[in-house]
Amino acid sequence: MGMLRYVRGVVLAGCLLLISNQICSQEHPSLVLTKEGVQKIRAELGNVPLFDASLKKLKEEVDAEIALGIDTPIPKDFSGGYTHERHKKNFVILQKAGVLFQILEDEKYAHYIKDMLFQYEGMYKDLPLHPKERSYARGKLFWQCLNDSNWLVYVSQAYDCIYDWLTKKERKQLEKNLLRPFADFISIENPQFYNRVHNHSTWGNAAVGMIGLVMDDDELVDRALYGIEDDGLEIGGKDNDGGTIKIEGQKSGFLANVDEPFSPDGYYTEGPYYQRYAMYPFLIFAQALHNVRPDVKIFEYKDSVLLKSVKTLIDLSDADGEFFALNDGQKGMSYASNQVVSAVDIAYNFGGKDPQFLSIAEKQGQVLLDDSGLAVAMGIRDGKAKPFIKESVNLTDGSDGKQGGVGILRYGNEDLTLVFKYAAQGLSHGHYDKLSFSMFEKGDELLQDYGLARFVNIGQKGGGNYLKENTTWAKQSIAHNTLVQNETSHFKGEYEIGSQHHSELYFFDASNKEVQVVSAKEKSAYPGTEMHRTMAMIKWPHFKKPFVLDIMKVNSEKENQYDLPFYFLGQVIEANFEYKAPTMLHALGKENGYQHLWLEGKGVPTLDNAKLLWLNQGKFYSLTTTVNNMDELLFTRIGANDPQFNLRRDAALMIRRKNTANTVFVSVIEPHGSYSPVSELALDSNSNIAHIEVLFDDDNYTAVSIEGVGGHKALFILSNREALKTEEHKLQINDKEYQWNGPFYYIITNK
Amino acid sequence: MGMLRYVRGVVLAGCLLLISNQICSQEHPSLVLTKEGVQKIRAELGNVPLFDASLKKLKEEVDAEIALGIDTPIPKDFSGGYTHERHKKNFVILQKAGVLFQILEDEKYAHYIKDMLFQYEGMYKDLPLHPKERSYARGKLFWQCLNDSNWLVYVSQAYDCIYDWLTKKERKQLEKNLLRPFADFISIENPQFYNRVHNHSTWGNAAVGMIGLVMDDDELVDRALYGIEDDGLEIGGKDNDGGTIKIEGQKSGFLANVDEPFSPDGYYTEGPYYQRYAMYPFLIFAQALHNVRPDVKIFEYKDSVLLKSVKTLIDLSDADGEFFALNDGQKGMSYASNQVVSAVDIAYNFGGKDPQFLSIAEKQGQVLLDDSGLAVAMGIRDGKAKPFIKESVNLTDGSDGKQGGVGILRYGNEDLTLVFKYAAQGLSHGHYDKLSFSMFEKGDELLQDYGLARFVNIGQKGGGNYLKENTTWAKQSIAHNTLVQNETSHFKGEYEIGSQHHSELYFFDASNKEVQVVSAKEKSAYPGTEMHRTMAMIKWPHFKKPFVLDIMKVNSEKENQYDLPFYFLGQVIEANFEYKAPTMLHALGKENGYQHLWLEGKGVPTLDNAKLLWLNQGKFYSLTTTVNNMDELLFTRIGANDPQFNLRRDAALMIRRKNTANTVFVSVIEPHGSYSPVSELALDSNSNIAHIEVLFDDDNYTAVSIEGVGGHKALFILSNREALKTEEHKLQINDKEYQWNGPFYYIITNK
Repeated sequence: MGMLRYVRGVVLAGCLLLISNQICSQEHPSLVLTKEGVQKIRAELGNVPLFDASLKKLKEEVDAEIALGIDTPIPKDFSGGYTHERHKKNFVILQKAGVLFQILEDEKYAHYIKDMLFQYEGMYKDLPLHPKERSYARGKLFWQCLNDSNWLVYVSQAYDCIYDWLTKKERKQLEKNLLRPFADFISIENPQFYNRVHNHSTWGNAAVGMIGLVMDDDELVDRALYGIEDDGLEIGGKDNDGGTIKIEGQKSGFLANVDEPFSPDGYYTEGPYYQRYAMYPFLIFAQALHNVRPDVKIFEYKDSVLLKSVKTLIDLSDADGEFFALNDGQKGMSYASNQVVSAVDIAYNFGGKDPQFLSIAEKQGQVLLDDSGLAVAMGIRDGKAKPFIKESVNLTDGSDGKQGGVGILRYGNEDLTLVFKYAAQGLSHGHYDKLSFSMFEKGDELLQDYGLARFVNIGQKGGGNYLKENTTWAKQSIAHNTLVQNETSHFKGEYEIGSQHHSELYFFDASNKEVQVVSAKEKSAYPGTEMHRTMAMIKWPHFKKPFVLDIMKVNSEKENQYDLPFYFLGQVIEANFEYKAPTMLHALGKENGYQHLWLEGKGVPTLDNAKLLWLNQGKFYSLTTTVNNMDELLFTRIGANDPQFNLRRDAALMIRRKNTANTVFVSVIEPHGSYSPVSELALDSNSNIAHIEVLFDDDNYTAVSIEGVGGHKALFILSNREALKTEEHKLQINDKEYQWNGPFYYIITNK
Repeated sequence: MGMLRYVRGVVLAGCLLLISNQICSQEHPSLVLTKEGVQKIRAELGNVPLFDASLKKLKEEVDAEIALGIDTPIPKDFSGGYTHERHKKNFVILQKAGVLFQILEDEKYAHYIKDMLFQYEGMYKDLPLHPKERSYARGKLFWQCLNDSNWLVYVSQAYDCIYDWLTKKERKQLEKNLLRPFADFISIENPQFYNRVHNHSTWGNAAVGMIGLVMDDDELVDRALYGIEDDGLEIGGKDNDGGTIKIEGQKSGFLANVDEPFSPDGYYTEGPYYQRYAMYPFLIFAQALHNVRPDVKIFEYKDSVLLKSVKTLIDLSDADGEFFALNDGQKGMSYASNQVVSAVDIAYNFGGKDPQFLSIAEKQGQVLLDDSGLAVAMGIRDGKAKPFIKESVNLTDGSDGKQGGVGILRYGNEDLTLVFKYAAQGLSHGHYDKLSFSMFEKGDELLQDYGLARFVNIGQKGGGNYLKENTTWAKQSIAHNTLVQNETSHFKGEYEIGSQHHSELYFFDASNKEVQVVSAKEKSAYPGTEMHRTMAMIKWPHFKKPFVLDIMKVNSEKENQYDLPFYFLGQVIEANFEYKAPTMLHALGKENGYQHLWLEGKGVPTLDNAKLLWLNQGKFYSLTTTVNNMDELLFTRIGANDPQFNLRRDAALMIRRKNTANTVFVSVIEPHGSYSPVSELALDSNSNIAHIEVLFDDDNYTAVSIEGVGGHKALFILSNREALKTEEHKLQINDKEYQWNGPFYYIITNK
C-alpha cells in the first residue's frame, strides 16, 4: 500500500513539473488539515492522550464502516429513514476517513473515499429531485438542500485529503460530474435556500465555499462569501418554518450571514440551539478561509465575532452544559455535541489560546483531529486548563446589538441561573415570548422554557421534523413564563409583525452580586399595552440560597384579561390557597396554545400572597406572588388536543387577572432545601419568604417589600421611567423618604 | 481532658475491685464496638482509606452539631416538623459521638452524650404521650413508638460507649429515670406495637434488647428475644396501615420476627423497601447479641437467614442499586442508604468475607466505624473486592418458603431485568397485585411498579406519612401491570382475604440464558377465576437486545371484563391502531383505583397485533400484543380525583376485553435502540417484532409464534397443567407434531 502511494506521488510530482504553476500552486490538504499541521500531528502521535484517544475512537468507527461496505442508496426517506441516515453517515465517515488517510498514511482510507465518491459521481448526474416534496428547497440526496449542503461541507474535506493522491483525470471527472454541479445545485439552482440570511444558507455558503477552496475555484468562493447578486427571487415567499425568504435590501452570502444574525456580543438571533448547529459551518469554513485565503481575515471580521460567539454559546448553557431552550431548541442538546467540539477547538487555537476553553474540551472528552484539536489536546496534556467561569452577562441581539437581548443572572457557581429573554423575533425559529424567563439550579431547570415540539430525527414523529404542535403550542406566548393579554399571543403570533419589533433593555446591573437586576420593556407585542418586567437575583446572608424577585408591570389603554403562568417542573407539595380540582378536564381555551392546556384546578387567593411549593429533582422551590381577591389561580397541564402525544404533560400555575388596565404582578421565586429518597431527609422544606407587598406603585415608581421568616426585611424600589445611572430619585412611602441615584434602590430594612 | 478520663478510669477501676464480679463482669463497649475492636481500629488509623474517610466525614458532622449546642425540644410535630427532626438528629449524633469517643478518646464527645442524656432524663419522666394522636401506638418523643424505638436503638450504642466513663451514680440515675422506663414504655406499655411480627416490632425488640444488653438486664433481653408472654391484646385490631395487630397463635419477639417475615431465601415479605429499613435493627441487634450473648448463635439462626438476606436485598435492586418498588416502596431508595451500609459491612464480616460485598461497599463510599466496617475497608484497601454479579434468581416468600415468591430474570450485565411478583400479601404494606411485573433496562424502569403514594418525611404531605391515595390508588390492582377482573381489585382489596392467600409458582427455569422462564398461577384473587402468567426472557442472536414474552392466561367460570394495563414510562412515539383522544377527560371509573385514571385515548385494534412504541431516557421500547376486534385499547393517565397532586401523572396502555370467560393475552415487550439529544441520532428506533400469534390454546397447552422483522421465527409452547421437568408432552399444531419434556418447549423455527 505504501508503495502504491509513492507511485501515485510520483505521478503527481510529474503533474507539478508539467503544468503551469498557477493551476497546481495550492498544496493539499490545505482546507482544515494542512500539510504542515499533518506533519506536526504525525510527530506528536502517542504523546497527547486526548488526541490519541480521539484518533483511536475515530479509527474504530471508520474501520467498522469500511468493513460494512459502501452503500449509496437511491434517496427516498425523510430524516430518521434509511436512505437519509445512510447518506448522512456516508458524509460523516468520508470526512473522517480523509483525516485518517492523512494522519495514518494508510491508503485503504483513500480508496474508500475515492470509491464512494465515484459511486456518487455515477448516480448524481441523473439524480432527480428528492421524492419527498415537503421542503421549500428540495435537495437531491436528501429531502432538503440543507442536508445536501451538510454533505458537501464534509465531502469537501474528504476530497481535500485525497486531492493529491487522485490522478488529475479522476479529479476532473469528480469535479465535472459531481462536485461542481452539486455546488451549483444548492446555490444558483436554489437561491431561495442559498441566498438568505438563515442557518440553512450558512450551510449552503460554507459548502460552496469549501469545495471552491479545494478546487481553487474563485467563482465559487466569491459566490460563497457574497452570495448570488441577481437571484431572481421576488420579495416575500415563505420557507417551511414560516420564515420570509426574500427581504428587501438584505444582503446574502457567508459574510452577510456573519453580519446579520450575530450581535456584536456573539449572540445568534435564532438562539443557542441553532447557534450550536450553525457553529460548525461558520467555523469550519472560517478555518478553511484562514488557511487558504488569509487575505479575507475572517477571524478578525466584525470585531472577531465568530471567535467571540463560541464563548457566548457556552455562556448560554446551564451547569451541565445543556443549552437554554430559547426559541426552537431541543432540550438536552449540550456543548458535548460535535459541532461545539469543533467550535471550542477552533476558538482556542485561533482566539488567543484561552485556557478556559480547555476545561470545556476536557468535559467534551474529544478533540478535532487537526491542528486545532492537537493544540487543545496538548494544552490539556500540559496542565493549562482553567475552569470556565460563567458569570452574569447581558447579550445584545441584532446585527448592531440594538434589538433587545438576553440577560443572564447567575449566583455562585451556577447555583442559580436566570435566563431573561427580551430579544428580537429570532427569525423563523423564534417564539412569541417577549419578557419570558426560565430558571436553573445548577443543571436542573425549575421553571421551564418548553423548547421546541419536535423529535429531531425520530422518523415516526412527523419524519423527525417540526410537528404542528410547534406552531400551535411551543411558539405561542402562553407556552412561556410571560404575560398573555386576552388569550392572544404577542404580535398575534404573526411572524411578519413580530419580526419588525424587539423588546428594549431598560437596564442590566450585575455589579453587586447580592442584588443583580435585569429590566426590559415591551411596547409592541400588544398595541396600546406596555409591559415592563424587572427581575432581580437577591442573596440574603441568612438564606442559604439566593432568590429571584420578579416585577411584571403592565399598563394599557383599556381593560384586559392578563394571564401570567409559571411553568414549574416537578410535583406540587403545597399551595396556600383554596382551589377546586374538576372531576372532568376541559381545555382552557380554543386557540393560541390555550387549546393544549387542561385546567386541573381553579382557585381563589385566601391571602394577599399566593404561595406554591414544589419538589423537583430532590430540591424544594416556592413561588410567592401578590394577588388580589378577584384573581383566579389556575393549575394547568399541557396535553389537551394532543392526540399523538406530541407534548409533554407538564404543569403550570397561572395567575389570571381580569378587567384590568394597569397592574403589577410581583413574585418571589425561591429555591430552598433538598430531599433525598435515600436518606429520606427533607431539609429546609418550607418557604423562607413570609410576605411580599407592593408598598407603592404609580407610573414613576414601584416599591416592593420582602419579608423573610424570622422578620428579615428588604425594600426594592424601581424607577419606572428613567434608567440613567446618574439620575437622582426621591420617593416618600408611609411617611418615610427614600433618596437614591439610578434605576433602582435596594436596602435591607430589618436584619 | 486526657487526664480527666484517667481519673474517671481510676474511679471505675475502684468499682471493679469493690463490688461483686457478677455485676461488673461485662466490659464496655461490648455492644457494637468492642474493647478489642476499638484497640484494633486505633492501631489501623491512617492506614485504611475508606475507614479514615468515613471517620473524617463523621467527625465533621458531629463537631458541627456539637458547635450548635444541645436541644431537646418538647415533642409536638409529625415527621418533617422541627421537634421530630431534631430528636431524630439527636439520636443519630449521639450514636456517632459515642463512636468518636471510643476511637479518638476525646472526652468532649463523652460530655456531649452525657449532657444530652441527662437533658432527656430530666424531661422524660413527666413527658406525656406525644400530642399527635394519629398513631395506633403513640410515642413520647415522637408521634409513634416506632421512632421512639429508633431512638433507643441508637442511644443504647452511645450509652455503651460512655458506660465505663460515667460514674455508677450517673448510670443509675439514667437507667432508673430514662432508659429502663423508656424500654418499658415501648414494650409492656405498648404491646400492640411491640408484640407483633412487623417491622415496627423488630425495632421495638431490638431497642429493648440492646439497652438490656448494655445494662446487663436479662429480663429485657428475654423480652426482646421472645416477646411479652401475656400481652393482654385481643385477637384482631388494626394499625394505621390497616395491618392486623393480634393474630391468633402468632409468636412475638425478635426471633419470631426473624422466623416469620423472612423466607428461607432471605426475602422479607413486606418487600425490599421495608427489608432495607428493617435490616438495621435486625443486624445491629444481631451483632450485639453475637458480641454479648454468643450462646444465642444469632447469625446461625434459621440457616443463617439474617446474613443470607443481605445478599437477597441487593439482588432486589436495579443496576443503579435502587430497590424494586414492590408493595409500599419509595422509588429511589437504594443500597446507598445507611441501613444497607450497616447490613453489607456486617454481612461481610460475619458471613464469610464474601468479596462481592466489597464492591457494593465501594459504591456506598462509606463504612461502619466498627470492627465490621474496618474489615470491609481493609478488604477494599487490599484489593479484594469483586464485582457483585446479579443473576436471575427465584426468591421464595413465607417463613417456610411456600407462600409464593418473586422471580427475577436478568440478561447480560443487568441489560434487562424482569421482576415478577407472585408473592404473599406482604403484611400491611402489601399491594393487591398478584402476578404483576416491572421491567428495567440497566437502572431505568421501562414498565413501572408505581410504588407507594407517600412523601416520606415531607411534612406538608400529610405529615410525611402514608397518603390516602396509597390506599385508593397505589395498593389497588389496577395500579399495577397485572390483570383486573370487572374493575375490582384482587381479594376485593381486603387485607383479611389477601393475607390468607398467595400465588403459586408453576416453574422457574433460568438454566438457558437465551430463554429464561418464570410462571405462576393465582387461583384466589378472584374466586372462580384462575390466572396463569408466564414470562420468558428471550435473546435472539440477530437482535441486539433481549425481549420478554408475556403470556397471561385466564380461565373463569363466568364471563367477565378483563383489563390488562402496561404502565410504560416515557413518551408515546407511535401506535399502530386507531384511537380517539377525547376533548374532555373523564375518570375511567368510580372506585378501586379507576377513579384516579383519566382516559386520554380510546381505540380499537386495526390488526390482530396492537403495537405501542415509546421513548424513555433515550431508549426505545415496543409493546406488541395479540388483540381481537372486540378489544378496547385505552390510553390512561394517573391524576383524576387527586386534588392535592399526590400522584404522578404517569401513563398506561390498557387492553380491555369484555364478556369473556377464558382467554389468553400474549405480548412481547421489547427494548430496542437509543436516542441521544446531543448527537440527535435515533438508532434502531423501530420494533423488531413483525408478528406474534397464538397458534394453539386449550386447557393443556398454549403455543405462541413470534416472528421478527426479517423473517426470523420462534415457537414457544407452554404446558398449562404439568410443570414437572420430566413429564413428556406431545402436541400437534397445523399438521406438525412437537414432542418435548418439561413445562415448556422453545425452538427457533426460522433463522
